Amino acid sequence: MTSTLGTPVFSDSPARDLVCRGCGTHFPLAAQHACFECFGPLEVGYDAAALASVTREQIERGPKNIWRYAGLLPTGADPASRVTLNPGFTPLVRADALAATVGLRAPLYVKDDSANPTHSFKDRVVSVALTAARALGFERYACASTGNLANSVAAHAARVGAPSVVFIPFDLEQGKVVTTAVYGGDLVAVEGSYDDVNRLCSELTETDEFEKTAFVNVNVRPFYAEGSKTLGFEVAEQLGWRIPAQVVIPMASGELLTKIDKAFTELVETGLVEAPADGWKVFGAQSAGCNPIAVALHGDTDVITPVKPTGIAKSLNIGDPAAGIYALEAVRRTGGWMDYADDDEIRDAIRLLARTTGIFAETAGGVTVAVLQKLVDAGRLDPDAETVVFNTGEGLKTLDAVAEQVGPTYRVRPSLRAVREAGLLD
Amino acid sequence: MTSTLGTPVFSDSPARDLVCRGCGTHFPLAAQHACFECFGPLEVGYDAAALASVTREQIERGPKNIWRYAGLLPTGADPASRVTLNPGFTPLVRADALAATVGLRAPLYVKDDSANPTHSFKDRVVSVALTAARALGFERYACASTGNLANSVAAHAARVGAPSVVFIPFDLEQGKVVTTAVYGGDLVAVEGSYDDVNRLCSELTETDEFEKTAFVNVNVRPFYAEGSKTLGFEVAEQLGWRIPAQVVIPMASGELLTKIDKAFTELVETGLVEAPADGWKVFGAQSAGCNPIAVALHGDTDVITPVKPTGIAKSLNIGDPAAGIYALEAVRRTGGWMDYADDDEIRDAIRLLARTTGIFAETAGGVTVAVLQKLVDAGRLDPDAETVVFNTGEGLKTLDAVAEQVGPTYRVRPSLRAVREAGLLD
Ligand SMILES: Cc1ncc(COP(=O)(O)O)c(C=O)c1O
Ligand SMILES: Cc1ncc(COP(=O)(O)O)c(C=O)c1O
Ligand SMILES: [Zn+2]
Ligand SMILES: [Zn+2]
Repeated sequence: MTSTLGTPVFSDSPARDLVCRGCGTHFPLAAQHACFECFGPLEVGYDAAALASVTREQIERGPKNIWRYAGLLPTGADPASRVTLNPGFTPLVRADALAATVGLRAPLYVKDDSANPTHSFKDRVVSVALTAARALGFERYACASTGNLANSVAAHAARVGAPSVVFIPFDLEQGKVVTTAVYGGDLVAVEGSYDDVNRLCSELTETDEFEKTAFVNVNVRPFYAEGSKTLGFEVAEQLGWRIPAQVVIPMASGELLTKIDKAFTELVETGLVEAPADGWKVFGAQSAGCNPIAVALHGDTDVITPVKPTGIAKSLNIGDPAAGIYALEAVRRTGGWMDYADDDEIRDAIRLLARTTGIFAETAGGVTVAVLQKLVDAGRLDPDAETVVFNTGEGLKTLDAVAEQVGPTYRVRPSLRAVREAGLLD
Repeated sequence: MTSTLGTPVFSDSPARDLVCRGCGTHFPLAAQHACFECFGPLEVGYDAAALASVTREQIERGPKNIWRYAGLLPTGADPASRVTLNPGFTPLVRADALAATVGLRAPLYVKDDSANPTHSFKDRVVSVALTAARALGFERYACASTGNLANSVAAHAARVGAPSVVFIPFDLEQGKVVTTAVYGGDLVAVEGSYDDVNRLCSELTETDEFEKTAFVNVNVRPFYAEGSKTLGFEVAEQLGWRIPAQVVIPMASGELLTKIDKAFTELVETGLVEAPADGWKVFGAQSAGCNPIAVALHGDTDVITPVKPTGIAKSLNIGDPAAGIYALEAVRRTGGWMDYADDDEIRDAIRLLARTTGIFAETAGGVTVAVLQKLVDAGRLDPDAETVVFNTGEGLKTLDAVAEQVGPTYRVRPSLRAVREAGLLD
């Protein structure tokens, strides 16, 4: 499971090793993602002193993208080493009208990650993963994707002139397929679900032919996952170096949620942010068509029963979520909750978000806003506590979700008379 | 033609008056767009001393968006006055692989304005126009649009909770219609061309019912147009306060081109940038289906003969271009040129840009890159002079343009064996 490629120079990085999330065993920094002892997933471990040496001033002097946090990431300290579209520092939008509609009295913000270069938060994880992959000596870039990761890997590879091979379920939205294929790398449509695609990619990493291929979310997954921390860092910095009381986060594998929580923890541990007196609460959002993590929480169990995903939130359709157990842990530890929304609720939430904020989200964003509403209604979210909701993707990629709901409100011939007859002058 | 609404306080602005581009007559700052003397279009005039007082340091201390240039714009100095999604400071991407392909030896950059909030440069002009409109007392926001302006006006209105009414030709791309309608304002599909839509909107501004409605590109057009200057300011700042030798710009009305040239002129006049010894050359790009400005240049005439636009570059399909004559003037004065590309060339250029830079452009970007290639081939562009090409829109909005050209390169069942049989392991 370790690449035969040499361990790179991680000398200018605060990363120290890889640590098993299951049994705690330590491994050297390399292209390894599972523990030799217990097969648990690995996570990047850091040198606490190195992290603690990072200052707000250093960060604020940095570029307005994820690399301002290079001192808290495993790779990318040297700008010349980066394989990146320079994502990040996306808008944190105050959403008063949305807050009023869903019934929140305290400030509500939307962290709008559709503003990234390929219009999803995946640019963050791909930039970190591919920068590590290049340092580790990989020559081709790959992934198993529900769509957004595909776009991002293909675009990153094109930017640096590297070959790419991207694996997707055959039935993705046109907006995800075309935006991946246009970059000219290989695109493999697999006749199966994302979970089938993921299994296939795991097998491929073991073949000789893919020895020099980095699958961002398989063999270099520990590095990939760290990229999501930048969403947590940015939110805190944009709030004036404060952690919000409540965050609502969409879940597919569950990784993003755990890494935003990890970011907050690191900010406190390093002293970059003062620990909030009442902590923070992490809330998770899934769709009704793919809700295995939320169902486990509701059933008060640690056993996540895989499902066969259905429904329009295709980017979240991971039926066997790799980090689900850690998402459960974070939500339970912080006193949060999870819920799920069906397709009609998702569509309505996309429109609600657009009308009240000017932000057009993909189905994943609809899931998150719909679940925000449910959490308020159920009394799980405190309406008097500051809340941040994450929009992780772009409405243009899932147009069909709302194309039948919205359209021209009038159709007229090009004359004043026609406009008058249509009632537009009433 | 002047609104009956009172003149706002433009006291914290360097803008001084409106000046006729035809006869030079001056008018007070107000919602007026045509000259009472000669019916020529009006442009914002500035107090030269006010502009000259702006320093690089002031700008560099400002936010990473268009408002860092507020001291060079007619409105928006007070952050609280802004009606804005905070567009701007989009990436200037060094494009070595593209340069090599098209045959340029000097550095080539793509200014990627698809990174704006609604993914086109129109967010710049809309932010400036609506900020002026609010100051002028307008209560509803409107436009005549080929698509991108529609998206942007509807999203800006939603952000500030204002009503909007947007007019578009009935046959626009789904990616433009849905992304406008989703924001919940009125959307009027007009059975005609953009030029019909524009005429209708001019008539509507004269009706009592639209007295409090600002059409961003009709009755507040002088303010709107100034927003495009920020593209020129940014390119110069991103190059280290230098003006590039050659710029290639898409044209619909021709306004954008004239305003990037105006930005460069103002930067020199204010002393923010040193005048380049050899000046700069402005190049214009149209599609073969709508090329009235380029045809006038090629025919060595000032008479722009309106056309009935056809072809896939719908956002550029203005057959009777309001600023065409001024675009001709800028191109002739600077020693540039214009050309046009057909639909197949546009499609190929979209793919070329994506493969070589990781940037997925809409048809307008395809037009510009295709024309870049033609200008190099024809010896009009100097291959040894630094060049900036403007991508003004997002590929996701015009997916159909390339959807039949690109797609999965393999389709397999989810097994190693299937992957092997497909030749992926060869
Ligand atoms: C738009 C969007 N949001 C959220 C997620 C969830 O990511 P994770 O797998 O880290 O839970 C994904 C995953 O593909 C996604 O595409
Ligand atoms: C993507 C894009 N690029 C360029 C233009 C050209 O703008 P102008 O009318 O200022 O020439 C437009 C106009 O709609 C556009 O949508
Ligand atoms: Zn272990
Ligand atoms: Zn005049």
